[in-house]
Amino acid sequence: MSDVFEKVMDLAKRRGFIWPTSECYGAVAGFIDYGPLGAMMKRRVENIWRDFYVIGEGYYEIECPTIGQEAVFVASGHVKGFSDKMCQCPHCHEYLRADHVAEGGGVEGAATMGNEELAAAIAPCTCPACEEKLGKVEVFAFNLMFKTSIGPGSQRAGYLRPETAQGMFVDFGRLLRFYRDHLPFGAVQIGKSYRNEISPRQGMIRLREFTQAEAEIFVHPDEKDHPQFSRYAGYTMPLLTSAQQLGKEPAVTMTMREAVDRDLIANEYVAYYLALTHEMLIKIGVKADRLRFRQHLSDELAHYAADCWDAEVYSDRFGWVETVGIADRTDYDLKSHAGQSGTPMTVFIQYDQPKKVKRRRIVPNMSVLGKQYRNKAKAVFEALAQATPDEKGADIEVDGEKIHIPPNLFEVRDEVIEVRGDEVIPHVIEPSYGIDRMCYAVLEQAYDEDTADGETRTVLRLAPCVAPIQVAVFPLMNRDGLDTIAAEITQTLKARGMMAEYDDSSAIGRRYRRQDEIGTPFAITIDYQTKDDNSVTVRDRDSMKQVRIAIDKIPDTICSLVNGSAEFSAL
Amino acid sequence: MSDVFEKVMDLAKRRGFIWPTSECYGAVAGFIDYGPLGAMMKRRVENIWRDFYVIGEGYYEIECPTIGQEAVFVASGHVKGFSDKMCQCPHCHEYLRADHVAEGGGVEGAATMGNEELAAAIAPCTCPACEEKLGKVEVFAFNLMFKTSIGPGSQRAGYLRPETAQGMFVDFGRLLRFYRDHLPFGAVQIGKSYRNEISPRQGMIRLREFTQAEAEIFVHPDEKDHPQFSRYAGYTMPLLTSAQQLGKEPAVTMTMREAVDRDLIANEYVAYYLALTHEMLIKIGVKADRLRFRQHLSDELAHYAADCWDAEVYSDRFGWVETVGIADRTDYDLKSHAGQSGTPMTVFIQYDQPKKVKRRRIVPNMSVLGKQYRNKAKAVFEALAQATPDEKGADIEVDGEKIHIPPNLFEVRDEVIEVRGDEVIPHVIEPSYGIDRMCYAVLEQAYDEDTADGETRTVLRLAPCVAPIQVAVFPLMNRDGLDTIAAEITQTLKARGMMAEYDDSSAIGRRYRRQDEIGTPFAITIDYQTKDDNSVTVRDRDSMKQVRIAIDKIPDTICSLVNGSAEFSAL
Repeated sequence: MSDVFEKVMDLAKRRGFIWPTSECYGAVAGFIDYGPLGAMMKRRVENIWRDFYVIGEGYYEIECPTIGQEAVFVASGHVKGFSDKMCQCPHCHEYLRADHVAEGGGVEGAATMGNEELAAAIAPCTCPACEEKLGKVEVFAFNLMFKTSIGPGSQRAGYLRPETAQGMFVDFGRLLRFYRDHLPFGAVQIGKSYRNEISPRQGMIRLREFTQAEAEIFVHPDEKDHPQFSRYAGYTMPLLTSAQQLGKEPAVTMTMREAVDRDLIANEYVAYYLALTHEMLIKIGVKADRLRFRQHLSDELAHYAADCWDAEVYSDRFGWVETVGIADRTDYDLKSHAGQSGTPMTVFIQYDQPKKVKRRRIVPNMSVLGKQYRNKAKAVFEALAQATPDEKGADIEVDGEKIHIPPNLFEVRDEVIEVRGDEVIPHVIEPSYGIDRMCYAVLEQAYDEDTADGETRTVLRLAPCVAPIQVAVFPLMNRDGLDTIAAEITQTLKARGMMAEYDDSSAIGRRYRRQDEIGTPFAITIDYQTKDDNSVTVRDRDSMKQVRIAIDKIPDTICSLVNGSAEFSAL
Repeated sequence: MSDVFEKVMDLAKRRGFIWPTSECYGAVAGFIDYGPLGAMMKRRVENIWRDFYVIGEGYYEIECPTIGQEAVFVASGHVKGFSDKMCQCPHCHEYLRADHVAEGGGVEGAATMGNEELAAAIAPCTCPACEEKLGKVEVFAFNLMFKTSIGPGSQRAGYLRPETAQGMFVDFGRLLRFYRDHLPFGAVQIGKSYRNEISPRQGMIRLREFTQAEAEIFVHPDEKDHPQFSRYAGYTMPLLTSAQQLGKEPAVTMTMREAVDRDLIANEYVAYYLALTHEMLIKIGVKADRLRFRQHLSDELAHYAADCWDAEVYSDRFGWVETVGIADRTDYDLKSHAGQSGTPMTVFIQYDQPKKVKRRRIVPNMSVLGKQYRNKAKAVFEALAQATPDEKGADIEVDGEKIHIPPNLFEVRDEVIEVRGDEVIPHVIEPSYGIDRMCYAVLEQAYDEDTADGETRTVLRLAPCVAPIQVAVFPLMNRDGLDTIAAEITQTLKARGMMAEYDDSSAIGRRYRRQDEIGTPFAITIDYQTKDDNSVTVRDRDSMKQVRIAIDKIPDTICSLVNGSAEFSAL
């Protein structure tokens, strides 16, 4: 098993998990097809995600278009800043990511270099495509959004969304009303996002079109305690904090309660979703010893984020791969969109008791000022209300014109008013999942080879909850009524919502192997004893052990095994 | 209820079904957001579709990218022919669909006119935007695909797919191997498709980004009898055949068996999916009297299609709306892709018995011809093998050069060979569903107003299987433990996979109204009698009747009501 990547991708291609896209025309890098088994597995992973976030957390799913108008991505910063540094090899003309070239050539600190500095730094490096020494190249920014135009006449620029998140931000006002104006609330989205990568060469890890599952949770800026925190307060897992990384120390394992109390994790919300993510990744089949949570260092943390952690999964081929990101994005997104669109994005938070607030009010002498400034009078009144006058009067500016208003033309009143509450810009907690990377991790970690009947057996040890086919049903022979019984059992299981596959072709051992290879956790065989006592065998993929079960108990037994409420070893 | 469209879209917006996209920046025509309830409803519609096609028919789902490379759409004909005729108003500069202008101006036969003819025909029409008389305009074709480029340097054109179907066609070879080289088989896809409409103005009916559910079923060209046809042989529904339309006669109602036998429907496969579509649309809540199946007339039938029917749903606002299309696309798609890609797309169909076939073989005199034609010899041999020689010899053409080969330089042998089978290009049966139009039909037809407690009640009479919230749970009062019992019942129902909503705010009548308006079919109320006898009331949305049920029977009862295995009136 020197290279699991090659083996698992070969299996994935051969058996219908993952295919190169439009292969007959020459596949395009950065795109994949999910074949019949892969699409089924992916849907199971997505639905487990929904179990956690939609059913469990109660955050409703919404569905926004994948094409967005330019203003959205101006506000989000993507039009200006969503780019990678690129250069072109002067020898083979391949487009290259300059930072990757630097990394491959042992240049440190490439991430923070300017274009010219980086160009100088990579000049001695070799081109990864043609292996010539690069020499003098130009480094420039390449925006990673796919651009198109909406409607005829190139009237309107459109972009394929680089993340699903913006849809939840721009819908903030409608979501707030849906949740009846109360914080906290959340909305989620599962769907396609797009990044026009310069040179993607990493299979399912770096895709130009990929599926994200993102939750945007809107919370009061001063209330970042998760109401259900007790669920994960005692949950422990290894944390690679920024201090640990800087000190080159190993991850520390502690409870979420302790991590929050010691300020290693910014708040309960972030800690809660770290633990929930850990639980979910383990559930779909990621091994605990190949999973770590790494905090962003201050120089990689986005300027607006208060804290950010990546769930990283270890891959034999790619090393530690960022698979989930959990960030406290503060009020950055809502502020940006409110500023760009002119639509306030706040929540009115009522005080328990109205507060008495002292306020200084400036009351203009309307009759005099009105006559003096005529059609400008309204603007003068408004500017005056905002002014900070002293005993010599007030200096205001209207349409660029500086105006002095003498003190006899207004009155300053100190009043006490009653304030019922505040307009608050919520903060956003964002857990963001890369579904394709989760699927790849599940496949790679499930891949195994062992020995059965003296031969090497390839087996995908998929968790039953993500296995595309949940149970196979085999008549030992394709006659004597065994096939009829097998077909009936298949139908019964399908009616219970199980993905059951009937197979009566070739020798029984071969049929087991075929199912082992695609990760089917259980197989039922109908043999001659079935006709005597109405029992069938149930075989466990991993242990290859078999037990006999009465036919009428099969639906409940298989359902329990698949949903995890029963263990095969206890049958 | 003069305009149900306005009312239902207002409700949909207000309650979180359908929102304008990125409204804070000014919504863009042709795009919508599904809000929390709309997305939930849409997912239920999609999952019902999967029940029919994936579980029922056994056609696996695959997932291809939405961005495709140019060659795919050259082969499919979309690069050349997927366009609408457009003109620009010389007065207000609005882009217009020329055929729609013609239709609005009473011009007949616009669909078959050339550009110049159409320009002349619409000159007297008025612009629908500014209402000026158009006058002289230019009509030209506008391609409806969204275009982008893949990777840096505009190296490679990419298109957003105009239909999901092409993914299944280009994956034909891999699908065939997945299904172990046997016909018939099918693959389905549910996902986004894109059409850059010139001027979309019809809400959810004409979207630039929309969701399709398509099945591509690959069948032997001579075997178009559906193996499960007996399921729908006796199914009756009204059919508006092309003859009926031409004779301006009403739809005829007959069984699918009769329609196939009388050649009104091309074959059993098409008839089977007409009936299945009828059953599915009725299940999700389309009313039988607002549903018809209309056959394409010969002048609207695509040149490659053997037969095509649209399921049309009647809308108060839009008239009969094409919602599903079911076509026999023959071998057009596989032939096109095989030709464009050079990859054969055939199935080897083995005969029951090998056949003896007479074959004439032309055997060249290699030594003479080889010397004579040297490096051209291979091409000459190949051309000769395909030639039809007579006693004077054979005339062939190599690289444009005509060559005569005298009869002494080759030998004609008549042989009998054994042929094991044929390479066959399968035909494709395609049921194609517009999910957004189905969702709109469901909403429009569910909208109703009646009277409750002397006031007008707005109620969405959604089928329980598509209602976003399946059951509401109300404590009569928010105290005395009624709230605790209600919360427990809500949790129990959620654990059973039910979408249950707890609500304890405002008067009970108002809570019923809120749920009626979003189509929640059932509501459970916990009152003071609950504490005495452990019973709760279950209220039916449509009849507003209530019955008392023991708490421990609630989960089973609600599940049965929602999945349709029990009727409220029988409780």
